[in-house]
Amino acid sequence: MTTITPAAAVQGWLDGFGAALSRGDYSAATAMFGTDAYWRDLVSFTWSIKTAEDPAAIRAMLEATMPLAHPRNWTIQGEGSDAGGVTEGWFTFETAVGRGKGHLRLIGGKAWTMLTTLLELKGFEEKKGENRVKGVEHGSHPGRKTWLEKKTEEDALLGFQKQPYVVIVGGGQGGIVLAARLKKLAVPTIIIEKNAQPGDSWRNRYKSLCLHDPVWFDHLPYIPFPEDWPVFSPKDKIADWLEMYAKVTELNYWGGTECQRARFDETKQEWEITVQRKGATIVLRPTHLVVATGVSGASNVPSFVGMESFRGTQLHSSQFRSSEDWRGKKAVVVGSNNSAHDICADLWEHGADVTMIQRSSTLVARSDTLMDLALGALYSEAAMKNGITADVADLILASLPYKLLPALQVPVYQQMKERDAAFYKRLEQSGFMLTFGEDDSGLLVMYLRRGSGYYVDVGASELIADGRVKLMTGEINRITATGVEMKNGMALTADLIVYATGYSSMNSSVAQLVSQEVAEKVGQCWGLGSGTRKDPGPWEGELRNMWKPTQQPNLWFHGGNLQQSRHYSQFLSLQLKARMEGIQTPVYGLAPVTTRAER
Amino acid sequence: MTTITPAAAVQGWLDGFGAALSRGDYSAATAMFGTDAYWRDLVSFTWSIKTAEDPAAIRAMLEATMPLAHPRNWTIQGEGSDAGGVTEGWFTFETAVGRGKGHLRLIGGKAWTMLTTLLELKGFEEKKGENRVKGVEHGSHPGRKTWLEKKTEEDALLGFQKQPYVVIVGGGQGGIVLAARLKKLAVPTIIIEKNAQPGDSWRNRYKSLCLHDPVWFDHLPYIPFPEDWPVFSPKDKIADWLEMYAKVTELNYWGGTECQRARFDETKQEWEITVQRKGATIVLRPTHLVVATGVSGASNVPSFVGMESFRGTQLHSSQFRSSEDWRGKKAVVVGSNNSAHDICADLWEHGADVTMIQRSSTLVARSDTLMDLALGALYSEAAMKNGITADVADLILASLPYKLLPALQVPVYQQMKERDAAFYKRLEQSGFMLTFGEDDSGLLVMYLRRGSGYYVDVGASELIADGRVKLMTGEINRITATGVEMKNGMALTADLIVYATGYSSMNSSVAQLVSQEVAEKVGQCWGLGSGTRKDPGPWEGELRNMWKPTQQPNLWFHGGNLQQSRHYSQFLSLQLKARMEGIQTPVYGLAPVTTRAER
Repeated sequence: MTTITPAAAVQGWLDGFGAALSRGDYSAATAMFGTDAYWRDLVSFTWSIKTAEDPAAIRAMLEATMPLAHPRNWTIQGEGSDAGGVTEGWFTFETAVGRGKGHLRLIGGKAWTMLTTLLELKGFEEKKGENRVKGVEHGSHPGRKTWLEKKTEEDALLGFQKQPYVVIVGGGQGGIVLAARLKKLAVPTIIIEKNAQPGDSWRNRYKSLCLHDPVWFDHLPYIPFPEDWPVFSPKDKIADWLEMYAKVTELNYWGGTECQRARFDETKQEWEITVQRKGATIVLRPTHLVVATGVSGASNVPSFVGMESFRGTQLHSSQFRSSEDWRGKKAVVVGSNNSAHDICADLWEHGADVTMIQRSSTLVARSDTLMDLALGALYSEAAMKNGITADVADLILASLPYKLLPALQVPVYQQMKERDAAFYKRLEQSGFMLTFGEDDSGLLVMYLRRGSGYYVDVGASELIADGRVKLMTGEINRITATGVEMKNGMALTADLIVYATGYSSMNSSVAQLVSQEVAEKVGQCWGLGSGTRKDPGPWEGELRNMWKPTQQPNLWFHGGNLQQSRHYSQFLSLQLKARMEGIQTPVYGLAPVTTRAER
Repeated sequence: MTTITPAAAVQGWLDGFGAALSRGDYSAATAMFGTDAYWRDLVSFTWSIKTAEDPAAIRAMLEATMPLAHPRNWTIQGEGSDAGGVTEGWFTFETAVGRGKGHLRLIGGKAWTMLTTLLELKGFEEKKGENRVKGVEHGSHPGRKTWLEKKTEEDALLGFQKQPYVVIVGGGQGGIVLAARLKKLAVPTIIIEKNAQPGDSWRNRYKSLCLHDPVWFDHLPYIPFPEDWPVFSPKDKIADWLEMYAKVTELNYWGGTECQRARFDETKQEWEITVQRKGATIVLRPTHLVVATGVSGASNVPSFVGMESFRGTQLHSSQFRSSEDWRGKKAVVVGSNNSAHDICADLWEHGADVTMIQRSSTLVARSDTLMDLALGALYSEAAMKNGITADVADLILASLPYKLLPALQVPVYQQMKERDAAFYKRLEQSGFMLTFGEDDSGLLVMYLRRGSGYYVDVGASELIADGRVKLMTGEINRITATGVEMKNGMALTADLIVYATGYSSMNSSVAQLVSQEVAEKVGQCWGLGSGTRKDPGPWEGELRNMWKPTQQPNLWFHGGNLQQSRHYSQFLSLQLKARMEGIQTPVYGLAPVTTRAER
């Protein structure tokens, strides 16, 4: 009996794969994958974010990308591991223009999943560690400029005498993190943000808001949170962190600036972006435009019959600030997502009489259970102790093809249902309509498919279960002068109606900023094409339009939660840098647009 | 032949030592040290910073401290090492009230050096990692306050309805770092700083100023600089970092506030500190006062005959901002330390006619050589790769008793002289008076003894060597209407005279803030008592009055470079926290005051 180590098995596979590619033998290379096989590439070969989901697709992707990429030096990193018939390991590789990191899972000696990701571009590496700048030029240099003088000069020139290469519209965490990465890569970038200061998009929300994702999930690149950062950041604390982050990473952050319109000049192949800043109209002419107005950017305010007749106060959840004024008053919250629950609890804590209107079934996961079962293996103190830093966790998550994810998640939520059975029973007995997703695949998958439909319970569910927050289920018929009339004939009187009805897709920002025509040309953002509710097919296998080229040249979308902002900003920044440096970036498999309409 | 591993040797020693202490056998415990032996303790046993420098002193220190401390669990950490006849290793231990970390060097089975340091107080550990706060209270809590509400309330109360336990006068890096540690330990603290913003004490200096210590030496606790931070921070960049650091660590930083006087109330055992803030007089009543006005706090302006007659501009180096106005003019810089050289170079780069007056011999070390030979093993990218983080490096440095340091440093500077022989020869040929310290022990030792007398060369020495910056050596006789007259009879005409004549000891701040009487009672700060120039004896073996109890109850001094601020703030914060919590803190070996006069 011969046994080989996991490392030897992985390196053996890599050697064979590398050799087959070197001699251009794509049949042999493809034959190294099993019949059930996935190759996910983040920018290193496809110059896009793409998963090939069977051997034929893998072969086509190899044939299209490898001749230019000239990959080599496929080398295992670490020891690899072996469990349940799956041998896996990390590896590094090079292409003609970059260095990458990958992950491989083998079953019976054949590849089941392969992840390839681009780490850096040769000759354009971030100047860090041994290669950091000196900060001072030793010697004597008449006319030298200090760091502050150079920075002040650059701030004054950029956008006026000197055009940025990239403009990012939206200065929330997504825009800030992307701009930080571009700064390290020396890509001249301006962020346009309507709020005055970085962090204001958090500060301006309802006061009880805290992150529902834990700290290990939320680190920004380059400057991790300190070890005593709270598990769940209060909104104003994360806002202060973003403000300092934007300052010390020296971003060109144009706060208090409104982006009025953007037009792509086909002849010059650049954007013409008109902004209002400090009372002046400024036209910026960057090569690339990144829309980072947020997956939850524009408010989705529903239009019910009779809204104009309501004599009380109506607000979208994004406008809701504080419950102070509603003590002893009647409040109705329309919706059952995170914000709806948070706002219900906040109003109740302030002595309001609160009713939630739940219009469709909702996924509820208790925060502690979610951390333990769904996130703990990758994002937790225990994971850190196992050497799984945020960057490692991100790559492990990335190594799981979206097609496989639902099946992997079903047992997690089965376990959750069992562990919290008494809790769910109490909640259902109150009339609350529960779901775990159409295929019981849980919160992460639902987030990827539709970005909505769930609540991470931090206390509001108990208020609903025992009736302290009242529950009304069903559809709204119309709004009356005094409240809400349901289709089931029930009527609710209200002094306040909060519409916690979510946000529209980021391409509605494009319709507003650029044109309806361009918005339709690029189609919807987000969603995998799963054919489930609010995520129409056909299947795409990656998030639509996110962090990768779109049907509109030089238009990009960036966003998502803090984990996604951290992880995918790396790949978007490298795509932009490659273009700035004139590196060939042939995009493989740009998805056709199938979902033009707003969801 | 039997060989045992370094770890076994160290653990064997610790077992024997621990057993001897447990049975109160101080003879046996002392006998485990060699005849040439040192025990340095940072707060864990002595509640002070103290080195016992021979077996008798060690025995006395054991007898005095161990009965209360009840040490146990002396346990090696890691593998230890063995080289050149010295076996060494890290260890941890516990006392009745705290947990500590130590370092041991054995020669022939006997201890040569032992370091013991206090890491944390039991029951008062920093809430980090697994013990971090949750950030949000799950559940429903009517009347709950948000993070921002609590913070705003605390800011409004502290110093008014609620008295701080500690007031720190001086909000430079020293005060900020100490306050950050106290915040993590929940010790209510206010920083009083005359400048408006954290970082201003850097911003207000001459514009070409950069740190002369490299980034690996300069990290602040909790939030290390990112990997792309420049080797030598420009002053405005470090200022921005300090500003953000003070914000995200949530310090109670009273900028734009002047401390007018402080008086210790013997009856109440508290300070009465009068400050001016926003036009109002506020009296603070903390239990402890920390003076962190900087080792280089108050300017030391010399008084030469005739100064009042000078028709040009006279400035202390701390007042010098920019060379812009001195193009084509004659400038004289009095002094030959770091600032003197920096200012000479800056004036020369701006086209001034510059003369340096060197009054005594100066230690010059080229920056690259210094980094390579003197700092590289502990503070460098290479050290980081060897696992020597800043915290580990600090402890290694701390493990070398000050008494041994000069002998260990002499060979380093011998090597420096050889490597840069041609450079030193050119410099001497220009007439520059060189020294490497009275015993050739170099820059670090000179810094510890007197905090002055050296230049880390980043370019100015070449200007002096080839005469672009002129050099005058000798004593000044008097200042005239048109310039400087030397005792050797030479006269220099000048439009500008900059006095780069250093700063006075921190106890001059005490004379000003408290009283001359208290300043004399505590005596000078800094210096080891080496009996060399500007560091009169008798030998103390530790820096006078720094980070430890002084002869004035409840008065403390904090300061030093960024490495010292980082490292010693840990021990000062633990001493203050222990007192706040009523832990017994009997101070061993408070040094008598022998140097009352200002140096």
